[in-house]
Amino acid sequence: MKKFEEKTLNTKEIYNGKIIRLQVDEVELPDGKISKREIVKHQGAVAIIPVTDEGKIIMVEQFRKPLEKSIIEIPAGKLEAGESPDVTAIRELEEETGYTTKRENLVFVDSFYTSPGFADEIMYIYFTDKLEKLEEPVEVDDDEFLELVEMNLEEAFEAMKEQRIHDAKTNYAMMYLKASGRLSNA
Amino acid sequence: MKKFEEKTLNTKEIYNGKIIRLQVDEVELPDGKISKREIVKHQGAVAIIPVTDEGKIIMVEQFRKPLEKSIIEIPAGKLEAGESPDVTAIRELEEETGYTTKRENLVFVDSFYTSPGFADEIMYIYFTDKLEKLEEPVEVDDDEFLELVEMNLEEAFEAMKEQRIHDAKTNYAMMYLKASGRLSNA
Repeated sequence: MKKFEEKTLNTKEIYNGKIIRLQVDEVELPDGKISKREIVKHQGAVAIIPVTDEGKIIMVEQFRKPLEKSIIEIPAGKLEAGESPDVTAIRELEEETGYTTKRENLVFVDSFYTSPGFADEIMYIYFTDKLEKLEEPVEVDDDEFLELVEMNLEEAFEAMKEQRIHDAKTNYAMMYLKASGRLSNA
Repeated sequence: MKKFEEKTLNTKEIYNGKIIRLQVDEVELPDGKISKREIVKHQGAVAIIPVTDEGKIIMVEQFRKPLEKSIIEIPAGKLEAGESPDVTAIRELEEETGYTTKRENLVFVDSFYTSPGFADEIMYIYFTDKLEKLEEPVEVDDDEFLELVEMNLEEAFEAMKEQRIHDAKTNYAMMYLKASGRLSNA
């Protein structure tokens, strides 16, 4: 699938940071014209939808500097180089919520590019309803400040309306839970 | 909602482009430590889920340079400064598909931040199943090369599995159509 491919004439790295890199590519379009593409490079991310025995979805509230406010999201984190997404899913679950699960209890839900017009970030999403409380909390990244939030699906849809839940992976996750009927007995 | 607010100590603009700006903020964390936040600024975007009388979802296939491949997406485009998202929705529908609709036939579905960890991009999503074919095609952006694709919901879920549909707004849209039962008679 390389329809309408854009040929790279040159690539200029603008910035190489901790989370993202930015490059600007000069490209030749299908009609021979020249254009520029601004491209954010990202390692990829993994999110998990953790559901308790009581049918509550465990989420985290955290301040998001780009938005200048806090929102409530399903647990997620960056994929490390060479890491399998299910490993990331369990690590982020442990670090952010204090729960864990086994690999065989992870259900792969979906993956998608978050913003394919300007970024290569891919998001993997897992689900689990087999949670165990960790006896010892694990260390979190030292620049992350989180608060746990538990909601049933109805409360989560209410929070979406109020835009306290307001990001692609979490809104997708709620729509997935509704469409799949996974929480219908909750 | 400013829980765990991060105070900006200074902001450095790294890049100011056509689609995005990049800045790096030095912030003071809730525990007094200093950290950096890489922030991509974006005008915001609007997508529309156009459904024909026959229950087909109209989408566009286009090459996405950050992914180095083509994917199939619901029609979408950037919000212009000061523009109301429903105006953008109709413009992008017209430019990308050759169909139009009236403002009163747009159903607002949802909005969400695409990648709140590093970007402020917000995505608005509309739905319409009242489409009219334009008699005259409208001009498209001269660096966009698109191909129309029509699928029913079952075909779209198949394309998601094959990752020909593979981005946040479109995967969300399909999950929404499934959850809402809007295409159940299709």
